[in-house]
Amino acid sequence: MAVSFWNNLLQITKNRVLQQRGVSLYNYTHGFEEHVIKKKLEQFAGGSINLSKDGNGIGVLTVNNPRLMNAFTGTMMLELQEKVTELENWKEGKGLIIRGAENTFCSGSDLNVVKALSSMQDGVNTCMFIRNTLTRLMRLPLISVALVQGKAVGGGAELTTACDFRLMTPGSEIRFVHKEIGLVPGWGGATRLVQLIGSGNALKLLSGALKVDPERAVSLRLAEEILPSSDETGSLEEACTWLNQYTKGPAEVIQAMKKVVIAGRELHLEAALREEKDIFGTVWGGPAHVQALGQRPKHK
Amino acid sequence: MAVSFWNNLLQITKNRVLQQRGVSLYNYTHGFEEHVIKKKLEQFAGGSINLSKDGNGIGVLTVNNPRLMNAFTGTMMLELQEKVTELENWKEGKGLIIRGAENTFCSGSDLNVVKALSSMQDGVNTCMFIRNTLTRLMRLPLISVALVQGKAVGGGAELTTACDFRLMTPGSEIRFVHKEIGLVPGWGGATRLVQLIGSGNALKLLSGALKVDPERAVSLRLAEEILPSSDETGSLEEACTWLNQYTKGPAEVIQAMKKVVIAGRELHLEAALREEKDIFGTVWGGPAHVQALGQRPKHK
Amino acid sequence: MAVSFWNNLLQITKNRVLQQRGVSLYNYTHGFEEHVIKKKLEQFAGGSINLSKDGNGIGVLTVNNPRLMNAFTGTMMLELQEKVTELENWKEGKGLIIRGAENTFCSGSDLNVVKALSSMQDGVNTCMFIRNTLTRLMRLPLISVALVQGKAVGGGAELTTACDFRLMTPGSEIRFVHKEIGLVPGWGGATRLVQLIGSGNALKLLSGALKVDPERAVSLRLAEEILPSSDETGSLEEACTWLNQYTKGPAEVIQAMKKVVIAGRELHLEAALREEKDIFGTVWGGPAHVQALGQRPKHK
Repeated sequence: MAVSFWNNLLQITKNRVLQQRGVSLYNYTHGFEEHVIKKKLEQFAGGSINLSKDGNGIGVLTVNNPRLMNAFTGTMMLELQEKVTELENWKEGKGLIIRGAENTFCSGSDLNVVKALSSMQDGVNTCMFIRNTLTRLMRLPLISVALVQGKAVGGGAELTTACDFRLMTPGSEIRFVHKEIGLVPGWGGATRLVQLIGSGNALKLLSGALKVDPERAVSLRLAEEILPSSDETGSLEEACTWLNQYTKGPAEVIQAMKKVVIAGRELHLEAALREEKDIFGTVWGGPAHVQALGQRPKHK
Repeated sequence: MAVSFWNNLLQITKNRVLQQRGVSLYNYTHGFEEHVIKKKLEQFAGGSINLSKDGNGIGVLTVNNPRLMNAFTGTMMLELQEKVTELENWKEGKGLIIRGAENTFCSGSDLNVVKALSSMQDGVNTCMFIRNTLTRLMRLPLISVALVQGKAVGGGAELTTACDFRLMTPGSEIRFVHKEIGLVPGWGGATRLVQLIGSGNALKLLSGALKVDPERAVSLRLAEEILPSSDETGSLEEACTWLNQYTKGPAEVIQAMKKVVIAGRELHLEAALREEKDIFGTVWGGPAHVQALGQRPKHK
Repeated sequence: MAVSFWNNLLQITKNRVLQQRGVSLYNYTHGFEEHVIKKKLEQFAGGSINLSKDGNGIGVLTVNNPRLMNAFTGTMMLELQEKVTELENWKEGKGLIIRGAENTFCSGSDLNVVKALSSMQDGVNTCMFIRNTLTRLMRLPLISVALVQGKAVGGGAELTTACDFRLMTPGSEIRFVHKEIGLVPGWGGATRLVQLIGSGNALKLLSGALKVDPERAVSLRLAEEILPSSDETGSLEEACTWLNQYTKGPAEVIQAMKKVVIAGRELHLEAALREEKDIFGTVWGGPAHVQALGQRPKHK
């Protein structure tokens, strides 16, 4: 009985990872009422989240509110959720680049939203809403890159950690500035930072509110590379070229590859190994595999 | 039903991490009878564990038994538990430096204690007692640094891994010498070493009983830095200066920052993300946050 | 009740790690029928898996099918399982070197087996069988080294990740080529790769199907060292010398050391700490410990 229960629990965790679409970290069982917080967020309008998708399976998501260094208004938080849902359902998708408008990345939350929703209940609910979205973003079956130009501070720094990779332009900066405003990260960035660079370095960046320039980011393995260009067009082109190294091939295979890596980083070893088998089953005998074997399709 | 049970289990794990005070790894359900082993340890007196706390929230804990290269007698093991309890309750605390007296770090257990408690039952119980204390030490909401002068060998090497960071003076050495005396680590040091430097490097240090000098420690990411001074006063001052980079600001924020990092390193991703939200709730609307927003306090 | 259930669950996980012999990842509860797939694999004969054990506790396992760059036929998969069982029961064992015959490592599965077993059910079952074996290989209480000469591609690359360490000869190459044939790793290699080098680098190697030469492998911390010799005899000698640094001393102590590292990498922190204590209990008061203390044995 204990064993079957254990298996059930593993199954629940597995399903959370495998079912890529619309599975959230919080729901009503955590006291989270999504429709209530959505109503409140609607009242704080401004800016936009733009998504373009090209024919090669690469999406570009732009955080667009340059008046406030691309801070998130309430409606931008809602739009981000919509775009993530769209990406979860993008069958041809293979890669994603997230960037900010007009040469800077993102400065977190619009302070007007923060002040208006400064009650404990509202503050925590807003965080749960964003954290749900960023957890789904992190689990997209796409290879994702944060293209950091200018500044990624506060929530903007946290947003970069929801991507698989970070590419930085010369002179750009990532900074977990939360301590300076009496906070800890609220968008899941601390947890993801520990996973990316280890607990020691994460503790230093967070408790020191350190400014991380591209050289330091690379040496901490927080960023992959420093791009040559610092302008918007040049750096986007370079980020696309970088990403293309990893997105050649059929979408279902690239997506399966991202899923096995998600399993490896989120699950315990035994559960991850079993998961890898299930994902393997989704491509074994599939069109790309059959073609490689020089056979006619038997299954599909 | 499965889901609510799962949530209960997560809650239990979360509580272990959140309730920072007095939560032990072993209790009577693990066959551990603390009062019995404490009685035995009392019989082996000598040395002391000294704690000083300054006005800036930095504590200095000194392992003091220079006659035996700061090996732990029985009463020192008991005193360490008391000091950890004191630190768990230190509301103004932000950082902690652990060092040894008279220019060397610590050589593990006093061999007289080891020989007297060499029955299987006593040996394992002593380990459970120390391991409880070191797990609580590791989870203190303080940024902790082991200042390694001279030698940190055996249990002394294990003690360094219960801190967030290690700073080493020129000529100092960390050595997991256990293999040479027919043992594996018993104070939790192997587990923590794997977490700090990865399983491959941990296996090399442990199975080779390698002497790790400061240069090698830095390249393995076991130590942060080599301090310039090798004398007691100079190196302590330098360690304080290093630590001060990360402890500026209100104690409740620094403590919350350490707690989100603990959650990130101890919990599964989903549980850690939820935990981060709960810790976020402890500072949102708090005095430092309100001051930063330029508002009057609404909550507390 | 919740607590005792939780403890039961931890116990189950612990047992999986501690009981080193014959514990598999999949059994009939996962719909895995070992005898069925073994019958099928028997039909694809060729090559062999050779094991030699020296007097110093070092085993050398050779994947031998040079006609097909040491690809695994069905009978080789069965033989690997037998050799792993033999190694689990080798009381004097301390280290293991895995290599390929005739100057190349291994190219994964024999394509004839793959084509013949290309139904979904057969493909997944074959993977479960190998994955069971490789999980047991990874958990052997021996310090294991993959000696990579020539090419380790596909399943061969995955095989290297089941060892604690990888040593590469000049000009050799590790390549997770799966994407090129429309697959993801099926032998557990993706999960183990994420654990070894982190999710970002794993995602790059997998989704880019990158050729990893020895220099890159070392910089990714995938390989320990580049051996000076590239010929079979020289490199084997050098690998033995490298391994000998870590295998000096009594077999029971080396095996216990490997076990604490397994616990550290597979279990949650709390469970790993408790496990370390149990393994400690297996050597405390044992012959090597007693000798080191200069006492006569009391227990054993």
